Amino acid sequence: MKVALAQLNPTVGDIAANSAKIKHFIDEANRHQADLVVFPELALIGYPPKDLLLKPQFIDDNIAALKEIAGLCDRCAALVGFACRHTGKTGRALHNAAALLVQGQWADSYYKQLLPTYDVFDESRYFEPARGHQLVILGRERLGLTICEDIWQACEYSDRPLYDLKPLADLKDAGADLVINMSASPYVMGKHAFRCDLFSRQCRRYKLPLVYVNQVGGNDELIFDGASCAFDRDGELIAQGRDFEEDLLLIDLDRMHTARKETLREGIASVHAGLILGLRDYVDKCRFRSVVLGLSGGIDSAVTAVLAVEALGRERVFGVALPSRYSSEHSLNDARKLSDNLQIKFEVIAIEPAHKAMEAVLAEVFTGREPDVTEENIQARIRANILMALSNKFGHLLLTTGNKSELAVGYCTIYGDMAGGLAVISDVPKTMVYELAHYINRRGEVIPQSIIAKAPSAELKPNQTDQDSLPPYEQLDDILHRYVEQEQSYLQIVSAGFDKNTVERVICLVDRNEYKRKQAAPGLKVTSRAFGSGRRMPIAQNYQSFKPGFPQ
Amino acid sequence: MKVALAQLNPTVGDIAANSAKIKHFIDEANRHQADLVVFPELALIGYPPKDLLLKPQFIDDNIAALKEIAGLCDRCAALVGFACRHTGKTGRALHNAAALLVQGQWADSYYKQLLPTYDVFDESRYFEPARGHQLVILGRERLGLTICEDIWQACEYSDRPLYDLKPLADLKDAGADLVINMSASPYVMGKHAFRCDLFSRQCRRYKLPLVYVNQVGGNDELIFDGASCAFDRDGELIAQGRDFEEDLLLIDLDRMHTARKETLREGIASVHAGLILGLRDYVDKCRFRSVVLGLSGGIDSAVTAVLAVEALGRERVFGVALPSRYSSEHSLNDARKLSDNLQIKFEVIAIEPAHKAMEAVLAEVFTGREPDVTEENIQARIRANILMALSNKFGHLLLTTGNKSELAVGYCTIYGDMAGGLAVISDVPKTMVYELAHYINRRGEVIPQSIIAKAPSAELKPNQTDQDSLPPYEQLDDILHRYVEQEQSYLQIVSAGFDKNTVERVICLVDRNEYKRKQAAPGLKVTSRAFGSGRRMPIAQNYQSFKPGFPQ
Repeated sequence: MKVALAQLNPTVGDIAANSAKIKHFIDEANRHQADLVVFPELALIGYPPKDLLLKPQFIDDNIAALKEIAGLCDRCAALVGFACRHTGKTGRALHNAAALLVQGQWADSYYKQLLPTYDVFDESRYFEPARGHQLVILGRERLGLTICEDIWQACEYSDRPLYDLKPLADLKDAGADLVINMSASPYVMGKHAFRCDLFSRQCRRYKLPLVYVNQVGGNDELIFDGASCAFDRDGELIAQGRDFEEDLLLIDLDRMHTARKETLREGIASVHAGLILGLRDYVDKCRFRSVVLGLSGGIDSAVTAVLAVEALGRERVFGVALPSRYSSEHSLNDARKLSDNLQIKFEVIAIEPAHKAMEAVLAEVFTGREPDVTEENIQARIRANILMALSNKFGHLLLTTGNKSELAVGYCTIYGDMAGGLAVISDVPKTMVYELAHYINRRGEVIPQSIIAKAPSAELKPNQTDQDSLPPYEQLDDILHRYVEQEQSYLQIVSAGFDKNTVERVICLVDRNEYKRKQAAPGLKVTSRAFGSGRRMPIAQNYQSFKPGFPQ
Repeated sequence: MKVALAQLNPTVGDIAANSAKIKHFIDEANRHQADLVVFPELALIGYPPKDLLLKPQFIDDNIAALKEIAGLCDRCAALVGFACRHTGKTGRALHNAAALLVQGQWADSYYKQLLPTYDVFDESRYFEPARGHQLVILGRERLGLTICEDIWQACEYSDRPLYDLKPLADLKDAGADLVINMSASPYVMGKHAFRCDLFSRQCRRYKLPLVYVNQVGGNDELIFDGASCAFDRDGELIAQGRDFEEDLLLIDLDRMHTARKETLREGIASVHAGLILGLRDYVDKCRFRSVVLGLSGGIDSAVTAVLAVEALGRERVFGVALPSRYSSEHSLNDARKLSDNLQIKFEVIAIEPAHKAMEAVLAEVFTGREPDVTEENIQARIRANILMALSNKFGHLLLTTGNKSELAVGYCTIYGDMAGGLAVISDVPKTMVYELAHYINRRGEVIPQSIIAKAPSAELKPNQTDQDSLPPYEQLDDILHRYVEQEQSYLQIVSAGFDKNTVERVICLVDRNEYKRKQAAPGLKVTSRAFGSGRRMPIAQNYQSFKPGFPQ
């Protein structure tokens, strides 16, 4: 039997376009004489469809599309991910399902058993889990069908499994010859290596080969890396599809070891590729033709600009420098030099007249008050107003350029530099922004060296640098990683050797700035815990995280 | 046995302050010779605690506080809601639990069985459900313990129950004499009447009396109305606590019919009380001393200003008129008159100089382009910049004044009139804003009649009215109610008698403006489906909701 792994990039909710892609891949599979083509989880509607699933018409539409596709599955059978109505007497309205399409018919349906409801996942909001194994009989083959999370339950990685079902053990008992996994597993830096380790262990444990098909593409904050692959029953990797692009990977189950094996990106190269894909798909799936961004001459906007050019091409990127009275000459030069290197359209719009007018407008009501952060925010918000005006007038999507470190501690202005439709690097800590810059310059200068070398500054008052207000970024990022990604407590972080006052201050800043993040643009997730839908914090709350414990 | 229902208003995460409140209510219950005092769901940490629950230190702290409280429960026992660690071999880390504190000891714990994971609720993200009935033996009493959702499963209201457990039936079988329900059930207009109907039916079905204790207070977007109550085994209401404020309601189980019965607010009066509570608690729990808001002379900002004064007192509210060249004289007069009626601080800051400066700054890059919505948004964003500057400089919280109808169709400016820390009426449709205005004026003019009488206008270009761009609000609100709250399809709405093109246009506008709502301020929920955490839509998506179905 010859299996085709159709690693496709769907658009959420675009049933017509996704159907067309599925049909195209079925044709391709046929052309390669495959017996079965396997699509990712919920391929027909795109993952994650979120509350579109609550629209009954949407479910009807995805079923109508599925029936239409079934007619095309003649020689080659297909397993297509879709949302299926649940007909049981109790429970949620839907199953996260796979349809077996064979000989022109929708022959059967199979359901996901383990429904992730943590981090960015909300599957218990919509789906009822399957009970009992999901075995697909196709000719002489007994295929154990699993959907994403179904194969992730493994005792090596946690003290206590989240679920009390064991889909793989059940499939083994039911006599499966092979496990198929249809996934929509989002990218996180380092995750694919973890996946391969997990998959390999599962194959060895159950003495079963595994074929894994993952979605690819960016959908809002999530980037799906594809990287579909297969393992033999000894846990040996025998096929590896491309990462960060569509692919059709063919595996002859009788001659498994002849399959293609791509080399994948690792580390910062994968972050780079992931951000480019996430950015391109957000812009294209939102049907924008172009993007605009403010170029401050700093490293964050420089990296964002390069990513935009790599994602969209230089014709679709528009850079604007918005110097104020506090902007240094070198910043404007650096922004200009970057634009020259990238050959993008570049404008300089000085904000001084608008800045002066705002000061005049506020002069009376501010009488007798000392300057403070207010005056800094005013400048950032004038810039946002100008950038949004360009967005409104010319139809550009505004890209936000802030990094994760500053978003964490609130070193950013709400309705100012936080404004924009997509926050490209808002899950990239500042230290990793530098890594990205070095990676971007790996074959020669794209980002001017002076941008990388200078001390970071918001340039919102004279001679300002970030380090006036914040601990050094190496230290800050380490504390943030422990506090935000690892949920370490104040005491745990302090015992790791950090200064008490610094830890207290950083924790206070993170907690106090939840209100800003509530109104942040969607940001591309590349770490295990991004701000956004995977971190849901109350705003009006008063937990004293920065203290050793109760009683405090 | 004498039971005290301690309807308290906790602050999320503030374990020390909530403990103090719980201790105070235990003292009060003792003073009234109660045998048992019952607190709301998760009273010790406040509902909803969201991802604070993922912090192990937070769980430790709530357990330490519980142990301390136990020492005070001498004569009077207590049932206190808290987050308990789950010690089973599989499953999530926590239970949504109640501790029985008796004779100075933490005697036992009971767990919630039905975990709501829909709308604004995410309980499956954190909690493992209990298995088996939760019977509390206290002296001679056999108390059936339930937590919120546990008593909401009833066949009358849906074709298919969400859960396959039946906590009430199990408790009846186990010989319970009385059902206790500890809740954190958010306010929605009309919901308390529904609750009473449901509770009454459940009592009659199982021939059991019910004591229901609900949380009160605002926590971010959710308003909890309290309104704790009790029913006898015949489904008769025998006790009714206050709505929208703290209360201690005493019930002697041997003389049930002697308990206090408060009269509750209904309809628009309950919306009014709910918004006041939600606003006051958001401001106070975020520890702001005062609020600022823009007064346009329109009805939305007028209603918001009145609610703010009723919530906080006139000294804590600061109104600002920000007239532009398109503002009418009557608008400024109306704003001033409103401020006079409310006796609040009032400033006029004309935006013309800033507006002119922004035009000058953008003149070159806009050369040859016709004016469009860009120019309108610029004005709204200048206003936001000024209001945020006042917020930054003086420490006021900025209130957003937009209503649900305009937020639904995107008739609002992101980073402009959408800016603010709390959107007070963002779940109030425009037609209901008028109802609120009439209700506010029920005893005489607070909102000037001219504000209520005039045609709504954004005043962002000459002679503009809302109805230039939108269908009449009665029609718009009806379509929005069907589309947003009821998930009706295009065809269903059209068959209800609405014009095809209007329905198509409204649906398109709602779908296309998801990106704005993603960055909206938290808004107080008063309808069954508010924008915010209860409605999770993808942004980069392309479902054609405005068409009859697939194939389209």
